[in-house]
Amino acid sequence: MEKKGILIVISGFSGAGKGTLVKELMRRHGEYALSVSMTTRNPRPGETEGVEYFFTDKAHFEETIAADGLVEYAVYCGNYYGTPRAYVEEQLEAGKHVILEIEIQGALKIKKKFPESLLVFVTPPSGEELVRRLQGRGTESAEVIEKRLARAVEESEGVEAYDYIVVNDDLGECAEEIHFLVEACRRAPVRRGAFINEIRRQLSGFVKGERE
Amino acid sequence: MEKKGILIVISGFSGAGKGTLVKELMRRHGEYALSVSMTTRNPRPGETEGVEYFFTDKAHFEETIAADGLVEYAVYCGNYYGTPRAYVEEQLEAGKHVILEIEIQGALKIKKKFPESLLVFVTPPSGEELVRRLQGRGTESAEVIEKRLARAVEESEGVEAYDYIVVNDDLGECAEEIHFLVEACRRAPVRRGAFINEIRRQLSGFVKGERE
Repeated sequence: MEKKGILIVISGFSGAGKGTLVKELMRRHGEYALSVSMTTRNPRPGETEGVEYFFTDKAHFEETIAADGLVEYAVYCGNYYGTPRAYVEEQLEAGKHVILEIEIQGALKIKKKFPESLLVFVTPPSGEELVRRLQGRGTESAEVIEKRLARAVEESEGVEAYDYIVVNDDLGECAEEIHFLVEACRRAPVRRGAFINEIRRQLSGFVKGERE
Repeated sequence: MEKKGILIVISGFSGAGKGTLVKELMRRHGEYALSVSMTTRNPRPGETEGVEYFFTDKAHFEETIAADGLVEYAVYCGNYYGTPRAYVEEQLEAGKHVILEIEIQGALKIKKKFPESLLVFVTPPSGEELVRRLQGRGTESAEVIEKRLARAVEESEGVEAYDYIVVNDDLGECAEEIHFLVEACRRAPVRRGAFINEIRRQLSGFVKGERE
């Protein structure tokens, strides 16, 4: 199989536990690398530069776009979010599977630009559970819940664009599920090009040998 | 996940061990059913009616075509080969994953008619090994080898049409590999329709409830 890694997009409903899931996947398997997005939004309490995001300003973000330094970017709630190109390319070349934890706008751009990428959508085990998580513990403002809900509706409209939908019921099981989807992906013909060519070369050599 | 089974096409180079592989898969997992093809070719020594094939004549085969009783059929070396519809549909409805062991012409027709089907191509571990198997033990006539070779070349041209290529190096491992490709397939949005609809229904119910 090809040495080059696979580009994996992980999206999902807010409250589906994507972040924890990605951490669990990386803890279990060494061949994954997590891409850190760049954003112009302000850091929230507890967020660390280079861990959750690379925080920057609008001018620098736009310079990076102009220099083709992002594999995708999108605007969400008035802020830029983007995926720095260098890290992704280095890690893929090194054989790592690179995880982008991004939302649907970005996911669709990635699929268009990298048709061989793997798009996984993470969801809670049921619609009821999703609604429960969106509502929170009743401590959030109606405005926050309204925003989350609007986003969930938008996300639910886009799930068909993903290659797979995984249900995050049990954290470990779900991490293994993503891992085996990646393993499946590695068996697609598009990732077996070298092998197919070798087969064809041997067959044509055989034809030649037989006929000579 | 949907209760309905998945239609699986298994093709592969002659000598890749497809038959043994399918038997091993069925021995390990109870949720598979093997479709038996209908053919107008004569039974070979050791072949049993209803096991390797349903043997029939041209007139009956053509009647079956006319009655839309086959999900696909093809002509190979002057004989008809086809997949009886009734068995396939019954088993899928009962939640079994139905395996069709057919060649590329048939595989492409299946994919066109059933886009949700899973096409798996089985290959020996290398081009060298493939050539070795095509050559056999030196006991076959040049004509037989020539025919096998021509077929292998044709097959090698078609592999990109398959969803996955699996290498049959170790029988048990390869059977498990096919099993997990089927499991992956079950997580595609197209097979999660009911789940997606339930999510959407719950979200829209939530919107209504919130706004009232």
